[in-house]
Amino acid sequence: MTPPQSDVPAGRLARALSAEFLGTALLLAIVVGSGIMAERLSGGSVGLALLGNTLATGAGLIVLILVFGPLSGAHFNPVVSLIEGVRGTFSPARVLGYALCQVAGGIGGVWLAHLMFDEQVLQLSTKLRDGEGQWISEAVATFGLLGTIIGTSHTRPDVTPFAVGLYITSAYWFTASTSFANPAVTLARSLSDTFAGIAPESVPPFILAQMVGGTLAFFVFNWLFQTDAKP
Amino acid sequence: MTPPQSDVPAGRLARALSAEFLGTALLLAIVVGSGIMAERLSGGSVGLALLGNTLATGAGLIVLILVFGPLSGAHFNPVVSLIEGVRGTFSPARVLGYALCQVAGGIGGVWLAHLMFDEQVLQLSTKLRDGEGQWISEAVATFGLLGTIIGTSHTRPDVTPFAVGLYITSAYWFTASTSFANPAVTLARSLSDTFAGIAPESVPPFILAQMVGGTLAFFVFNWLFQTDAKP
Amino acid sequence: MTPPQSDVPAGRLARALSAEFLGTALLLAIVVGSGIMAERLSGGSVGLALLGNTLATGAGLIVLILVFGPLSGAHFNPVVSLIEGVRGTFSPARVLGYALCQVAGGIGGVWLAHLMFDEQVLQLSTKLRDGEGQWISEAVATFGLLGTIIGTSHTRPDVTPFAVGLYITSAYWFTASTSFANPAVTLARSLSDTFAGIAPESVPPFILAQMVGGTLAFFVFNWLFQTDAKP
Amino acid sequence: MTPPQSDVPAGRLARALSAEFLGTALLLAIVVGSGIMAERLSGGSVGLALLGNTLATGAGLIVLILVFGPLSGAHFNPVVSLIEGVRGTFSPARVLGYALCQVAGGIGGVWLAHLMFDEQVLQLSTKLRDGEGQWISEAVATFGLLGTIIGTSHTRPDVTPFAVGLYITSAYWFTASTSFANPAVTLARSLSDTFAGIAPESVPPFILAQMVGGTLAFFVFNWLFQTDAKP
Repeated sequence: MTPPQSDVPAGRLARALSAEFLGTALLLAIVVGSGIMAERLSGGSVGLALLGNTLATGAGLIVLILVFGPLSGAHFNPVVSLIEGVRGTFSPARVLGYALCQVAGGIGGVWLAHLMFDEQVLQLSTKLRDGEGQWISEAVATFGLLGTIIGTSHTRPDVTPFAVGLYITSAYWFTASTSFANPAVTLARSLSDTFAGIAPESVPPFILAQMVGGTLAFFVFNWLFQTDAKP
Repeated sequence: MTPPQSDVPAGRLARALSAEFLGTALLLAIVVGSGIMAERLSGGSVGLALLGNTLATGAGLIVLILVFGPLSGAHFNPVVSLIEGVRGTFSPARVLGYALCQVAGGIGGVWLAHLMFDEQVLQLSTKLRDGEGQWISEAVATFGLLGTIIGTSHTRPDVTPFAVGLYITSAYWFTASTSFANPAVTLARSLSDTFAGIAPESVPPFILAQMVGGTLAFFVFNWLFQTDAKP
Repeated sequence: MTPPQSDVPAGRLARALSAEFLGTALLLAIVVGSGIMAERLSGGSVGLALLGNTLATGAGLIVLILVFGPLSGAHFNPVVSLIEGVRGTFSPARVLGYALCQVAGGIGGVWLAHLMFDEQVLQLSTKLRDGEGQWISEAVATFGLLGTIIGTSHTRPDVTPFAVGLYITSAYWFTASTSFANPAVTLARSLSDTFAGIAPESVPPFILAQMVGGTLAFFVFNWLFQTDAKP
Repeated sequence: MTPPQSDVPAGRLARALSAEFLGTALLLAIVVGSGIMAERLSGGSVGLALLGNTLATGAGLIVLILVFGPLSGAHFNPVVSLIEGVRGTFSPARVLGYALCQVAGGIGGVWLAHLMFDEQVLQLSTKLRDGEGQWISEAVATFGLLGTIIGTSHTRPDVTPFAVGLYITSAYWFTASTSFANPAVTLARSLSDTFAGIAPESVPPFILAQMVGGTLAFFVFNWLFQTDAKP
């Protein structure tokens, strides 16, 4: 995820922001759409439904990062953009612009999924996702996601898209929360009362846990991947 | 998907057209054949059937593009060939030749699947696939497919076969139509009254929606991937 | 699948033959072992059983070709070795040696699977696999397998292991026979009365169909991938 | 799996040991966590549960090796570290350090999984895994794992992470034991009375079988991959 330079021509910035908007929209269309499809076809077997949801999300995420990565870095995630801000590779304005496009795109993607599946466009989730286990899960999920991005970007940036998609494939199953790991995704999914939804009142602790996991990852993985050449 | 040059030796053109015919035939044998197998073995669980159908199609499509890509670009899809025509890299005659081979190959592939599974060769589907959600789905599916091809061809052509296979793996689940995204495939699947079939009367709006999605993708992704070097 | 040279040092030949023996043994342990596991755990759902069997075979085959390819070409299949003989890259003696190691290894692998799953070691399958659809399937399966090998070896030999594994993943579902596509594998599987077995009386037409499909592939794909540079 | 040099700066060694600890912890969180998730969601279908468990483990293992490989070699397995010791690329002290971090990390990962899934942290498995078939399975599983690592490290080290993940994906199904193939993983899994657990009394023969398989692999694959250049 090579970050684009901070001072870029206006056209390039417009395309980067569009890539974040469009990529996050398609990501949410994938997550929510495949959740609806999987639930409808699984005859009540949640395990079977999660298999379909996982396959679609993991495969789709790899494609989205391959396509949009060269344009914007394919963050689709405010925690990732924020870290570029902390590192100084992104200006605060750029971080904000990315985050706004991610949230707006995510919401648009949820609505697009509803349109495709003949669901009412405007919904609010009623699925509570609460408790210690869920919050620890979100911290772990985000820690692992950031570790995947920081680690592979350092050593094999060409495999980062595959690593991130495979990570989410795994994290859908090994965390109790099915791994949101992304504040924009969490917000957007509160607008869908379907398989992938999360009740609005469950959103704030999820985002808090994601920030905790992301911060921890920032310190741990920056220490691990420091270059020995530095004094 | 590097398009072969427009004025090529006759032998090379014959091999390109054969590749489009054979590749599309195998693609349809995969889609329809695995659909029959999956439905027969799934004991009524449509979710389980779609898992098998998805796995076979996604994996098979990667292989077909790897094998036939160097010969013809591995379009297997009139929308993709049409875009090469609009760009001027393909002559109108070549676009037409590709499209005819794709449709003929697709039909042959469906019949081959019927032969393998001891089904009557000549069939007409009775499975209606209609409604706003289906049509929006086909537009979205084709938009994403073209974006995958245009985007990765621009920046990492070596991963295009994998990206296209993974995209279809995802789109089988995140679109309500299970993502035909291809007029030749749609036509051919109307000739099979099995899991993957589509009633002939449902075909025209599907193809129209695919053209809309393809056109939209052409403008959006050409804008996104314009090179800054150009004046 | 770069074939090793015909006149090689004795040590290198011994290692190539060992690689064919060991690789085919592990391939059969994977096919038969995962078939037993999948059938035992699937509670009667053949679709679910085939999913597990497919996942294990596709993934395992990729690994075996990656590991043994540099030693012997990782044929594991007399049809593939025979084609090297026809091409003149393998001497008749080498073709015979490869085929013997493949058959012996395959049988050993079936017995190893039986040992791992506490099955009686010596068995004969009672599962009849007959009829036109089955035989057409085996011809198509072998045709596609050879096309995958010939095509990718020509243009992207580094992806051949992945292409072959993905092809078999797909062919387990899109052919009515679940794609044996290999005489050594077919013979060996007649020695297991489990999920992956085939009755001895069904073996000869399977092998005949595989030879037909292989021969057809040899001509079609050699024509398709001829180099224009040749006179 | 390029082993780091034996005499390395202290900072680098600390990071390598941390990588082994953290990587093995995440591996066990994945194995045990996804096992719990899969069992809870599968409605009693062990086949479906193993599919989810397999998908999560295979995908996750690829990511962990990609991320931690450049830091420590990403062994996560005392058998692998021991072989580096036998080869002389690792000092005995380094082998011991690696093994301790792997065991400690593995235990930590099991506890983390329990925390995420609101399970009691301290558990002991009651799931007996005994008998000849199980022990042969563990020897075969470890033999294959070592062969995968030795083979691909020799010829295509860039694909080793993918090969190892795909190998485990396959081995979960083709061995009767579901392929532990790792003494640290085996020890840690005895501390979880869930899907992935193993009763403490079943641990010693498992580890013994793993050592047998590893030793066999060491001789067989070193012979196979000897370089002809050597006298």
